[in-house]
Formats: sequence, structure tokens, C-alpha cells
Amino acid sequence: MEQVSANIAFGGVEGVYKHASTSTATEMTFSVFVPPHAEGAKLPVVWYLSGLTCTHANVTEKGEFRRACAELGLMLVAPDTSPRGDGVPDDVNGAYDFGLGAGFYVDATETPFNTNYRMWTYITEELPALIADNFPADMGRQSIMGHSMGGHGALTVALRHPDRFRSVSAFSPIVAPTQVPWGQKALRGYLGQDTATWDSHDAVALIKSGARVGEILVDQGAADPFLAEQLKPDLLAAACDAAGIALTLNIHPGYDHSYYFISTFMTEHLRWHAERLSRA
Amino acid sequence: MEQVSANIAFGGVEGVYKHASTSTATEMTFSVFVPPHAEGAKLPVVWYLSGLTCTHANVTEKGEFRRACAELGLMLVAPDTSPRGDGVPDDVNGAYDFGLGAGFYVDATETPFNTNYRMWTYITEELPALIADNFPADMGRQSIMGHSMGGHGALTVALRHPDRFRSVSAFSPIVAPTQVPWGQKALRGYLGQDTATWDSHDAVALIKSGARVGEILVDQGAADPFLAEQLKPDLLAAACDAAGIALTLNIHPGYDHSYYFISTFMTEHLRWHAERLSRA
Repeated sequence: MEQVSANIAFGGVEGVYKHASTSTATEMTFSVFVPPHAEGAKLPVVWYLSGLTCTHANVTEKGEFRRACAELGLMLVAPDTSPRGDGVPDDVNGAYDFGLGAGFYVDATETPFNTNYRMWTYITEELPALIADNFPADMGRQSIMGHSMGGHGALTVALRHPDRFRSVSAFSPIVAPTQVPWGQKALRGYLGQDTATWDSHDAVALIKSGARVGEILVDQGAADPFLAEQLKPDLLAAACDAAGIALTLNIHPGYDHSYYFISTFMTEHLRWHAERLSRA
Repeated sequence: MEQVSANIAFGGVEGVYKHASTSTATEMTFSVFVPPHAEGAKLPVVWYLSGLTCTHANVTEKGEFRRACAELGLMLVAPDTSPRGDGVPDDVNGAYDFGLGAGFYVDATETPFNTNYRMWTYITEELPALIADNFPADMGRQSIMGHSMGGHGALTVALRHPDRFRSVSAFSPIVAPTQVPWGQKALRGYLGQDTATWDSHDAVALIKSGARVGEILVDQGAADPFLAEQLKPDLLAAACDAAGIALTLNIHPGYDHSYYFISTFMTEHLRWHAERLSRA
């Protein structure tokens, strides 16, 4: 692991790192904010998974999470959204919603994507091990959150690792990728035509088939241009209602899909996670 | 004036606007955050002048000012740092510290820069009039702040308009451009060889020649790579001390010149301005 940059902020360190990933067979870049802390302390970890077109940099620069993380004593890890580099296959038309910047947090099984697009393994196994080895992380206290495609990632990762994460939240998540254009394109491209393989990467389908977390926090802008066609939080609400999962779904009039929206509610999400991470 | 974008954030509106500037004879772009407010209310205005290489976008995206502006009821205006566009002359070598992105908040007198590089008039006359006409601004309650070259701009504009601004602050400002390489290059290029004309754009020289503000707030990172050669806050401290100006100069170990530094102390600066803007 190599440090790309380190900047002091809010009394902590915002660092960017790169490493040769065995999961993706590429170099991967991520950022970690380590808040001010006592020598030798182990800190709870919040994972933030980003949306389509993003790298680690979007939330790192625009997420406005450091003040709250410093106050609450939270580390925040922001991975990239796909493998990148020479030889990594992209969407045949260079579209923004598949390939580079659009890994959808799955392990691809379809050629030519199955060599590099292994973001599920990267996010759930390789990067956690790297974080545990290189940062003052208390891996017994982890929470996860994400935005849009990264909200999908956070929900599916949490639902399939209910004992790992104390809490899960999302901003404007894709909740049912098997039912919407972005998700169908991605899952078909990465996992193939057999839709039976898609359900393990669909939060609503996972809940319907018995996966459980105690509660979920979602904030959604009512003026989000992707709300009706791609995001459909009502599908998550119905699934949670049927499953007895306590979903808090906040719909905010006027807010869109951007970091202006995310940054507005970032502190509230971090406080919500911190409360759950601080429980004995 | 044309609205380029508008995003809801922290209950207010972050807008980007462009207009045909008569000062610079170019199209100019700026951003304004209007916090949530009662219908018909007039709001105090904080001006934020940016540093070398920046546009309005840097602070708009990375400045982390909206939460505090919303809480404190402050408008924040972020202009560009130079004229831009086809036909606008740039540094002959395309350097970052002169020409595009480096207007230094002066009215150039040297050809070929004197047609477009009229940022002093733009910032002190044209844009204030546009803001007064198009936003719910209380122009009787204005404060000004800036970063680096924009700190220089904020200090010189405030010192030459002591009755307009209630307060002035800066992050890592260039305080004595006539004495440092960045400033000498810019002032020679824009104003010519006669150094007598430079002093009206040098905060330390202005104070020495009698210009006054009641107090100044400056935050400076001790690990700023430009501190010793370009910024020299000790020169401002000495001038303020001799002049009886109450300078609060906070030096922060470990902090650099970036928005990681600025964002850390942005809220404190806005609170400091708000307190002064709220006085009767």
C-alpha cells in the first residue's frame, strides 16, 4: 500500500492510498479519514460506497463528512467504484452506467469483465483486510453507507453480512436493480442472462428471500431526476414493511441527486451510525 | 444575468450564474448561496475571494460553508479569479500565477491585460451592483474573506473600503505582494515597472500609509509550502501592531494550503463575521 497524499483536516488526516489489488488485478485507489484520537485507540469504521461515475475523490472532496467524523471519532473509508487502468474493459459505447466507474459492487462472471470487475470481493474481503492491517480500525465496530449505486452496494453488502455491520444507511439508493434499467443493464453485463443469479445483488429481493438487518436509514431527494425510473424507494419500503425491518425513509422536497443533497444530510447519517457504533 | 445551475442544500439554494461583464469585457461566472430565510428578508452578505488557479467552483464544492451560512443566515458570494474566454490574454508561458486564474484583484494598466483584467472594478463595483439588484442582499451588512491571492484581495478591498465591510478575514493570505515573488510578478505584469503604483494593492503597504480596519482575522497553516516565501504573515502582524489594528493570527501546526485546511476553519470564520454583521 502506498500513500498518494495526506492532508490534515479537522484535527485528523485525510489520506489517499493505492495498492495492487488481487481481487481486481489492477491498482486500486481509496481514501481514509482518520479522526483525531488517543494514541493506541481503535476507531469505529464507516464505509462509504459511491455512485455511478464517481471515484473515491467525489465524497472525499464534496461529502462534508470530516467535521462530524472528527467530533464522533469515526474513520471513514471511501473506495473507488470500479477497477481502472489500461486493459480494463469498459462499456462498448463508453456509457457512464456500465464498466469504468460503474462496478455495481458485484463479482462479474461474464467475459471480458470477470477478470477485473470483482468489486464484491474487493469491498467485502480484500479492502477490509487492508484497512485492518494498516489503520487504527476497530473491525468489531463497522457501519456502511452509500449513494445511489453505492447505496445499492451498502444495502446488499449489509444484508449479506448482518453480523459485520452495526448499521446501514443510504442516500438515494438503487434498491431493486433487477427491476430498473441501470441495474438490469449492469447485472446482465456482469452476471449474464440468467436472472436467477441477480437476486443476491438486489436489496429488495434479498429481503424478500429472508435476508435481514435490524433497521435502515434512507434519505432521498424528491426532485431527484432518477427517483421514479431508477431508485424506487417505495419498493424498499414495501419489502421492509413486509419483513418487519424498521426503515426510516426521509423524502426531502426540492433536493436532487447531487453532493449538495448528500452533504446536507451527511452529518445526520454519521450521528445515526455513531449512536449505533457506540452501543455496547 | 443567467442562472447556470441551482441546487438545494442545507435548506437554501446554491446557484451559479453568468453575465456579460462590462468591467472585464468577458462573460463572468460566480456562485451565490442564499440560505433559508423569511419571505422578503434582506440577508447579510459575505464575499469569498479565491486563490490562484481557482474559479468560483473550488470553494463552492469544497469550502464546507453552507451549513454555517444556513445556521447564521448569511449569503455567500464566490466570484471567479480572472476574466476568461477566447481572446483573453494569458501568461506568455501559461504559468499558473499570472493571467487566467490569477487576476490578483487589480485593474491592469499594462497592455495587453488592461482590456480584460479589471478585477478590482468587477469585485468592488460591478458585481456588488448585480448582487444588490438580483438577490435578497442587505448591502448595508457586508463582510469579506478570501484565501491566498483571495486573502490579498479581501484585505486590500476591505482596507480601501473601510465603511463598506463590517469585518475582514483571510486564510493563508498574501499580505505583502510587493515583497514576494507571486505578487511582484503579478503587479509588474498588470501595473507595470513603476512600483509606486503597486502599494495600493499591498495590504501591508496600505496599513503603513494609513489605511485602517478595526480588526483582522487570519488563519494560517504552519505546514503551508508557500508560507515562508509568498505569504509572510509576520509582515502583516508587524504592520497591524504598529498601526493598532487588532489582528488575530492563528497558526495551525500540520495544516497546509488546501481546502482541507480552509474547510476546517470555515465555520469559525463565518461565525466571526456573523457576530460582527449582527451588531446594530
